[in-house]
Amino acid sequence: MSLNLHLSASSSAFLSQNRLQNGLASTPRHVSTPARTNGIFKCVATPPAEIAVHKTKVNRNSNMAKLQAGYLFPEIARRKSAHMLKYPDAQIISLGIGDTTEPIPEVITSAMSKRSYALSTNEGYTGYGAEQGEKLLRATIASTYYGELGIEEEDIFVSDGAKSDISRLQVLFGSNVTMAVQDPSYPAYVDSSVIMGQTGLYTDDVGFSKIEYMKCTPENGFFPDLSKVARTDIIFFCSPNNPTGSAATRDQLIQLVQFAKKNGSIIVYDSAYAMYMSNDNPKSIFEIPGAKEVAIEVSSFSKYAGFTGVRLGWTVVPKELQFSDGFSVAKDFNRIVCTCFNGASNIAQAGGLACLSPEGLGAMHEVIGFYKENTEIIVKTFESLGFNVYGGKNAPYVWVHFPGQSSWDVFSEILEKTHVVTTPGSGFGPGGEGFVRVSAFGHRANVLEACKRFKDLYT
Amino acid sequence: MSLNLHLSASSSAFLSQNRLQNGLASTPRHVSTPARTNGIFKCVATPPAEIAVHKTKVNRNSNMAKLQAGYLFPEIARRKSAHMLKYPDAQIISLGIGDTTEPIPEVITSAMSKRSYALSTNEGYTGYGAEQGEKLLRATIASTYYGELGIEEEDIFVSDGAKSDISRLQVLFGSNVTMAVQDPSYPAYVDSSVIMGQTGLYTDDVGFSKIEYMKCTPENGFFPDLSKVARTDIIFFCSPNNPTGSAATRDQLIQLVQFAKKNGSIIVYDSAYAMYMSNDNPKSIFEIPGAKEVAIEVSSFSKYAGFTGVRLGWTVVPKELQFSDGFSVAKDFNRIVCTCFNGASNIAQAGGLACLSPEGLGAMHEVIGFYKENTEIIVKTFESLGFNVYGGKNAPYVWVHFPGQSSWDVFSEILEKTHVVTTPGSGFGPGGEGFVRVSAFGHRANVLEACKRFKDLYT
Repeated sequence: MSLNLHLSASSSAFLSQNRLQNGLASTPRHVSTPARTNGIFKCVATPPAEIAVHKTKVNRNSNMAKLQAGYLFPEIARRKSAHMLKYPDAQIISLGIGDTTEPIPEVITSAMSKRSYALSTNEGYTGYGAEQGEKLLRATIASTYYGELGIEEEDIFVSDGAKSDISRLQVLFGSNVTMAVQDPSYPAYVDSSVIMGQTGLYTDDVGFSKIEYMKCTPENGFFPDLSKVARTDIIFFCSPNNPTGSAATRDQLIQLVQFAKKNGSIIVYDSAYAMYMSNDNPKSIFEIPGAKEVAIEVSSFSKYAGFTGVRLGWTVVPKELQFSDGFSVAKDFNRIVCTCFNGASNIAQAGGLACLSPEGLGAMHEVIGFYKENTEIIVKTFESLGFNVYGGKNAPYVWVHFPGQSSWDVFSEILEKTHVVTTPGSGFGPGGEGFVRVSAFGHRANVLEACKRFKDLYT
Repeated sequence: MSLNLHLSASSSAFLSQNRLQNGLASTPRHVSTPARTNGIFKCVATPPAEIAVHKTKVNRNSNMAKLQAGYLFPEIARRKSAHMLKYPDAQIISLGIGDTTEPIPEVITSAMSKRSYALSTNEGYTGYGAEQGEKLLRATIASTYYGELGIEEEDIFVSDGAKSDISRLQVLFGSNVTMAVQDPSYPAYVDSSVIMGQTGLYTDDVGFSKIEYMKCTPENGFFPDLSKVARTDIIFFCSPNNPTGSAATRDQLIQLVQFAKKNGSIIVYDSAYAMYMSNDNPKSIFEIPGAKEVAIEVSSFSKYAGFTGVRLGWTVVPKELQFSDGFSVAKDFNRIVCTCFNGASNIAQAGGLACLSPEGLGAMHEVIGFYKENTEIIVKTFESLGFNVYGGKNAPYVWVHFPGQSSWDVFSEILEKTHVVTTPGSGFGPGGEGFVRVSAFGHRANVLEACKRFKDLYT
């Protein structure tokens, strides 16, 4: 992967540096000729006249100012880049951001390739597709994943990925809802909530005010004690969970649905890792009776078919789900999708359809099986080193406990000493402190090499 | 194009009908067995028990309730579908939603096809790309469209299309900004503003309160009288304009930039039709001195390369642009892009890069030239029929005046009598009343046939 991927806003210094290195850019403006001082060339940045002259009178959105540091994964990429500059010869292995590494099965890419070519023909050309996705793909997602569950074609909204849809759901809900998240959890839930103005300010000890953090720890088996959770409008819940790798059992999900029903809450259930489930835990929230009245489900082809770059996902908004005034949530979401989105790429949708063919499903299961073997290797390595290790059975993530240590310190030590990129648990919320997430997405040789280095470090 | 594209939330009846027709769905639930009454089968819909039982306690986002009717284009598609059911044998011609019809040049699709296949190889596979777009594509957009204008690679944010980015810009600005739009204008500006809570309620005579509608009429040459426009934080401005087809001159854009500068406003300049410009009007707002301190530009490959279904666009946020506190707008937009989006499809980006190769640019110009010939045919037809016709020279849209008539009435009459789908001007805002937009996107034979029918109707 290129050095420049995933750079956050705070990484502008890096961008400049790279731009100079690869010679793509012209001379940076606003930098005067290096002045020789005491034998050292010193770049003197003069404040550009233009920038000093004019500020607009548009106030910065105060919600943006509440956000903490950079979004987690760009921040990790930034530190990885810094490490690469420091150790240009190191063989860096990334088990960090959860990026897929195995090629997409050919049955899927050939469908995309074919669709691309067809766009050059009069017969095969199509322009705008339905914002909600192509009819056949919606129907096939419904029948493949929700065949027996009463979820139908029109309940499925095809998207360019779960992250985009999480954000569109937040726009749908607006600023006046309250929100609960598993702690730790995928940072996009909280950050999009902050951006929409649903939260107060951040403090180090409690996180964002007005967000209900549902602690998920080894002590409670990574399922929150709902008797201690305050009522919120929205409950984000990811299972199998990113980052802890834990999956909720059927009984736990029944509790969750009952809790939501009692409180009149809406669950946004993230099932992006459902196909990694090894046991018979539910793969969809809609396996739970009554869930259609209280839940939305967000999912994705990213981690099943290696579509992290191709971009394709879906969201299920059952027609049974209603706001307090009886208005259909799906109708409003449909309006959001039609106004703020123009459909997923038709080529990606052709790929999605191929994923759900018998050959495609077989090929996806093979890739998933491969990553699950990686998971096992990582789990065994850390267990053999005496760590308490969680997750990994139902998810491509291994959650390693470093009690009493700072996650970022552990992250830094591992990177410094083994050149392996992991993810600090605290990046997923206060409850992730003391953990590190190791992703199973990687070539086998890299996973084996990383595990060897872990053994060298911790034996 | 399939009958089911672009159906709005209000079209659920249609969806059901189609689902029954094509046999994809199972029997609709909640409908009891037809009861024989007086020799007529009557469907008795019983209220589904489940729906009656549970409403969540989540309040509907009050901004969603402010939106008017359906989003324009799904509404048109709905009426088109209804017409097709009424006249199943009619040869319907769509010059309505502005959907491209000509195949994508092969130099572009073959690049996408190649990239698709490469994703099946170890060497060619890539996972997550940068949220802001691939480095080379960003650099190439900057050099191709803004070579001399001081816009650089890091100012370019590659997107899945202008509509998505308009919505992300609204999320960036938040709820507490005020907004001006050309009247008439592309409905996504206003609707996304309403959704974000920037407006008050809608009334028929003034539109949404708190939105500043800048009247663009034949009398003012479709450029607003800025001396009568109230100060707002944000000014949406599209040139060449959709729907009027008019393009602002250099002098007019200088006025606009000065107006924004004086007021401390930010212009969101939509240049999605810039390559249709016939004369030497500016193709980018950044051709105007000082614009980098006051403007964002949104653009798209949709209407250049037939990418309406492939989905690829970009937004330029110059590093010079600042909020009132001096904070960089680009930094906040970068954060939005990283949190609410995961990059455009890598396959679409490969296509974008091919668009900007010498062969690709040549091929795009050819397609654009073809549509411009269509435009001429349509303009001449309506002129020969004695109509006042605007636009068409610098844009693929012809804006036909029907003074004193309701746009929807004219739309309906044309559809009923000629089976040609147009777009009612009032769908673009109160200022569009009395106009109909005729799109030049269509196969030549269809455009000629539509013009023949217009002649039959209006001679």
